[in-house]
Amino acid sequence: MIDLAARNALFLEARTQNGWLDQPVTDEQLRQIYQLASMGPTAANTQPARFVFLRSREAKERLRPALTPGNLEKTMAAPVTAIVAYDLEFHEQLPKVFPHKPEMKDSFAGEQNASKRQTVAVRNGTLGGAYLIMAIRAVGLGAGPMSGFDNAAVDREFFPEGTVKSNFLCNIGVGDPAKVLRRLPRLSFEEACRIL
Amino acid sequence: MIDLAARNALFLEARTQNGWLDQPVTDEQLRQIYQLASMGPTAANTQPARFVFLRSREAKERLRPALTPGNLEKTMAAPVTAIVAYDLEFHEQLPKVFPHKPEMKDSFAGEQNASKRQTVAVRNGTLGGAYLIMAIRAVGLGAGPMSGFDNAAVDREFFPEGTVKSNFLCNIGVGDPAKVLRRLPRLSFEEACRIL
Repeated sequence: MIDLAARNALFLEARTQNGWLDQPVTDEQLRQIYQLASMGPTAANTQPARFVFLRSREAKERLRPALTPGNLEKTMAAPVTAIVAYDLEFHEQLPKVFPHKPEMKDSFAGEQNASKRQTVAVRNGTLGGAYLIMAIRAVGLGAGPMSGFDNAAVDREFFPEGTVKSNFLCNIGVGDPAKVLRRLPRLSFEEACRIL
Repeated sequence: MIDLAARNALFLEARTQNGWLDQPVTDEQLRQIYQLASMGPTAANTQPARFVFLRSREAKERLRPALTPGNLEKTMAAPVTAIVAYDLEFHEQLPKVFPHKPEMKDSFAGEQNASKRQTVAVRNGTLGGAYLIMAIRAVGLGAGPMSGFDNAAVDREFFPEGTVKSNFLCNIGVGDPAKVLRRLPRLSFEEACRIL
């Protein structure tokens, strides 16, 4: 069992951040976050998640038109906003990341496997996004994940090649405790789980 | 920053488990796992993930026909196999879990929102599955997630009502260190990330 401080930091006392203290997020922190997140398991080590960290004013302005009103202010103010995306061409990396069986790439190739690639990319790219949220918290920063934005607009602006698709956004920084909302109720074990 | 022991347990030294020591997983451990996992963030607190923990011989036998050969032996031997699923009717819970705005339920209701519910359920249900993997590790157990099974067969057997869909499976127990495979390479920061 990890200690209570870690359980609190990652789960029990961790909260979605909606406001930010004036402290930067460094390259080194982003690399630490990715190093941790990248260790999470994905099917056949496919690792389809892709992360674009928007930190400069220019990059944030490119995102602005895609944000819904409720997410605009906090996102523009966040030290970094990550676009959590997935690569539909993840199989091109398999000879490198699944080196003992490079022919695994072929099982995902071609138009006949497009639907399979989509399913694998969404599922495992989303797992990668959750690992990112946990890794942000693990390095002592706050995360503000959100789905309220125009995915197609983000894709046109940041992924014009068409093979990478946005999934969700996640603000990153030192959260302002004053802006945290109250904890919303969780489903009980009985409501969400069964033991058979 | 959480301490190195916790970073190791969750990310750096955590490994997918393929074999199991002869130690049971208790109800109390499953409840601890869910308590932690349930704290992870989901869009509008939708919490669409559902978990069916298969522990009895009878329940495992119901799963057996859906398993691919490569996942059969380790899964039948695992102390518990979780079916990580998502509820396409998650919005029915919103008046309870988003109580300050119960009308949120209406924005997901009806046939005209079926595609939106699917997207939200898959994304946030998969986030919930990743939180489960991390929570299993957080309580000191080993996780063995896998996608190699017949989702439709699992759905027919365990979710005949048709509104809950299987996503992936995750074996749970005390892993056998002798059965762990070598760590496969991860994409570098430069391969998976950009800072703009």
